Amino acid sequence: MVATATVENATRRGRGGRPQRREGTAQVKGVPYIQRNIPTYDILSEENLQKIERTADRILAEVGIEFRDDPAAIDHWKRAGAKVDGLLVRFEPAMLNEIVSTAPAQFTQFARNPANNVEIGGNNVVFSPAYGSPFVMDLDKGRRYGTIEDFRNFIKLAQSSPWLHHSGGTICEPVDVPVNKRHLDMVYSHIKYSDRAFMGSITAEERAEDSIDMARILFGADFVDKNCVILGNVNVNSPLVWDGTMTRSLRAYARANQAAVIVPFILGGAMGPVTNAGAIAQSYAETLAGCALTQLERKGAPVIFGNFLSSMSLRSGSPTFGTPEPAIGSMVIGQLARRLKLPLRCAGNFSNSKLPDGQAVQEGLMSMLSAIHCGANFILHSAGFLDGLLAMSYEKFVMDADLCGALHSYLAGVTVDDNTLAMDAFLQVGPGSHFLGCDHTMRNYQTAFWDSTLSDNEPFEKWSGEGGSTDIATRANRQWKKMLAEYEAPPLDEAIDEALCDYVERRKAGMADAWY
Amino acid sequence: MVATATVENATRRGRGGRPQRREGTAQVKGVPYIQRNIPTYDILSEENLQKIERTADRILAEVGIEFRDDPAAIDHWKRAGAKVDGLLVRFEPAMLNEIVSTAPAQFTQFARNPANNVEIGGNNVVFSPAYGSPFVMDLDKGRRYGTIEDFRNFIKLAQSSPWLHHSGGTICEPVDVPVNKRHLDMVYSHIKYSDRAFMGSITAEERAEDSIDMARILFGADFVDKNCVILGNVNVNSPLVWDGTMTRSLRAYARANQAAVIVPFILGGAMGPVTNAGAIAQSYAETLAGCALTQLERKGAPVIFGNFLSSMSLRSGSPTFGTPEPAIGSMVIGQLARRLKLPLRCAGNFSNSKLPDGQAVQEGLMSMLSAIHCGANFILHSAGFLDGLLAMSYEKFVMDADLCGALHSYLAGVTVDDNTLAMDAFLQVGPGSHFLGCDHTMRNYQTAFWDSTLSDNEPFEKWSGEGGSTDIATRANRQWKKMLAEYEAPPLDEAIDEALCDYVERRKAGMADAWY
Repeated sequence: MVATATVENATRRGRGGRPQRREGTAQVKGVPYIQRNIPTYDILSEENLQKIERTADRILAEVGIEFRDDPAAIDHWKRAGAKVDGLLVRFEPAMLNEIVSTAPAQFTQFARNPANNVEIGGNNVVFSPAYGSPFVMDLDKGRRYGTIEDFRNFIKLAQSSPWLHHSGGTICEPVDVPVNKRHLDMVYSHIKYSDRAFMGSITAEERAEDSIDMARILFGADFVDKNCVILGNVNVNSPLVWDGTMTRSLRAYARANQAAVIVPFILGGAMGPVTNAGAIAQSYAETLAGCALTQLERKGAPVIFGNFLSSMSLRSGSPTFGTPEPAIGSMVIGQLARRLKLPLRCAGNFSNSKLPDGQAVQEGLMSMLSAIHCGANFILHSAGFLDGLLAMSYEKFVMDADLCGALHSYLAGVTVDDNTLAMDAFLQVGPGSHFLGCDHTMRNYQTAFWDSTLSDNEPFEKWSGEGGSTDIATRANRQWKKMLAEYEAPPLDEAIDEALCDYVERRKAGMADAWY
Repeated sequence: MVATATVENATRRGRGGRPQRREGTAQVKGVPYIQRNIPTYDILSEENLQKIERTADRILAEVGIEFRDDPAAIDHWKRAGAKVDGLLVRFEPAMLNEIVSTAPAQFTQFARNPANNVEIGGNNVVFSPAYGSPFVMDLDKGRRYGTIEDFRNFIKLAQSSPWLHHSGGTICEPVDVPVNKRHLDMVYSHIKYSDRAFMGSITAEERAEDSIDMARILFGADFVDKNCVILGNVNVNSPLVWDGTMTRSLRAYARANQAAVIVPFILGGAMGPVTNAGAIAQSYAETLAGCALTQLERKGAPVIFGNFLSSMSLRSGSPTFGTPEPAIGSMVIGQLARRLKLPLRCAGNFSNSKLPDGQAVQEGLMSMLSAIHCGANFILHSAGFLDGLLAMSYEKFVMDADLCGALHSYLAGVTVDDNTLAMDAFLQVGPGSHFLGCDHTMRNYQTAFWDSTLSDNEPFEKWSGEGGSTDIATRANRQWKKMLAEYEAPPLDEAIDEALCDYVERRKAGMADAWY
């Protein structure tokens, strides 16, 4: 059925890390995903990487991981030869590495618009919006609980940005919809208001299966059985516990040949050691076990190796985000994931600030650049997060999307060829003149530099005069409103739309509202 | 005379990238400079580096560099065997590389407090405040021209921060002092209000010599002849022109065995090609020529290879700062400087924003992290810049200094040893519990995580309640006022102080005020 969803996305085509500028304008097209042209930033020696791997081996063999409320998972482990003692599972060294070797190093996640298919793994980078906050905020109305309208708004903003590649999942919690029915409205909204790839629910096995069923209506059941069309982001209950809700959802995605994203959330000093090397070893062990479980459920199913390290304030005990230790720790996680030949998920652009201010951007960019440098293939939380993952900010969302645009140019690296070396320009211009109108500049200026739509680069007098002395948050406030006003829904086949609405209606009618 | 200046700086002692936490408190000590524990981020292949070097060779041989208004410089080049045609000097390939090979790869810049001596080169990183803006701004009074009082304030703020290592130079222009006398007040203020290393004037040869003479009063003439105690930051007049004012100052520093910092300022598309590879080749050629000239003036004099790439808005023609292309280009400059075995200067924390907002931090951090990653040894502009290098912001200064603190932890990398791997913690805590009170946490928490003094990590309710819903700029406003109120001048030997004041008075009396 993919053939029914071939509406071209006029703003985003072509490949490669470098966005293309439209002829004669400063407007830029995006790309469906970035192919990085700079190496990863590998900070740790082989010897130290092995020490971390050996510590993970010891954690898995001597301490073990508990798998709660999921007898089928326990059965998988028994059959695979792990040592099972009640809920506690222990693993011989190298056993899990062997099991995950059947997972693909790279796979395509299909979008209903094929021009928006994303490649996950290898040298590819996919930016996806933030995920999971109960609150939303904007400069006009402050913070309040998210609604399905906010949820749709963020999908529309993501769809309208040339610099995001994915529609994401629970962009915010639609708190006005009963908990047991939210996933239906969320998945439907992703399909309806975006033509990019998306994520489904993981909060219960049947919600994961509903999400996948809706993807089957969109793409066709046979296609879904052979191709990844939906992701499910499952969390470890660190330290060293996998809850049944998560493993059942994980298995539902794997069973359907869809990709689970396996993510421990380790706040150093609370859910893991207060030192980076130990937290990394733990994260590695927990993720490896989750990735292996997907392969026991269905050999060859795609899976993404995830990571979310964080720290805490030693004065108050509050979680801290975007701090230097987790940022530098992520580089090591990247090195380890590549040794496993698994696609890597990291997170960026998150902050503890309650406003889209300098703190928000400092913490956000510190985390985002670490995800970029460590080689993450799928970067969740690329746009919107404030307040320690508790709130989606409309202004921060478009500020982050703009930054994602800048990172397209950053990941393109430095091209070295006869044109870029510009010897002709030096010979033409010579000492003491300028390059403004030389042939080389005229030939290259349209693709030369990233041009932010939010930054103010005017002289002070113009900024403070007609510019109104705005800060970037104020300009972002105007931009998201303009983007929503100009948003146009990508066409969706009417028969599919109807079938999806029927499904949602039928499933909702089959259960009473529940708020847990 | 250094022995007279041995007052210990109680807040900053010890070595190594990792700041040390005081026993029993969350307060941290800084270090005199950072010894990085993470590798540089090398993004370009050997083949491409050679292409850039060969292009620089061609620029130097086929286009050449003009040396204006400095016959002694021309004489140096003639004696060295360059092809001189009037003011235009052309160089055979490898000639300049040969000449700069006599410069030290690393040197000590001495401070009047020996505990604050900095090592420039190798794995060392020194943070120095921003340099050269005519305006200052703060949240209370907005933007206005800088004064000598502002100048002293910024020295005091730098001296009070444990995260800056250097007092800098022209932190802002003291516009209320005649141009031809400013350097006297500036150098005196650095010596009087700070006990860290500092920079002198370069705006005229005699001002450079005054600056060095004042350093001789402080350190003793013999000591100065043998050791670096003052830096002079000289700019190329890109493209491919060295003005006599700069080369005369450059030679004055080299002659006195003091370190010139050689910095082209290339705005791609204006003073250099619009493509990165060409701009890098040009920057390399211009800097190499400047570095070589120091060695012709005095073989073995310390010199710093500098870099300042920037871009422009293709819509308005305005300069842009902190954009992705110059950031990624700096990585290449770092690789090239290391092949020359010269210490590297880069810049960070600069922005075009007119406020300490999200734009300021995004552009600032993008540039700052590129300086960190490319291996810069001396990072000028580490704190304070806004408005495209035109204004020093009091709030941005302390925000940047706080970020510099975070970067101490970042550059410490990931330590891997039995303690940090924390196997004892996993064995003690086990699955499903927490690490808050375990032995490993108790043993390590005091040095575990960077703890910002400006970020707000409180829950939303506390932030919006007793916290007053502040943004980071508002908190920074309070912090710099508190720092100034609590500032204490480091003791200065009275005889030296008197001799310096005599010198300043005498020099001022010898010339009429001039405003150019």
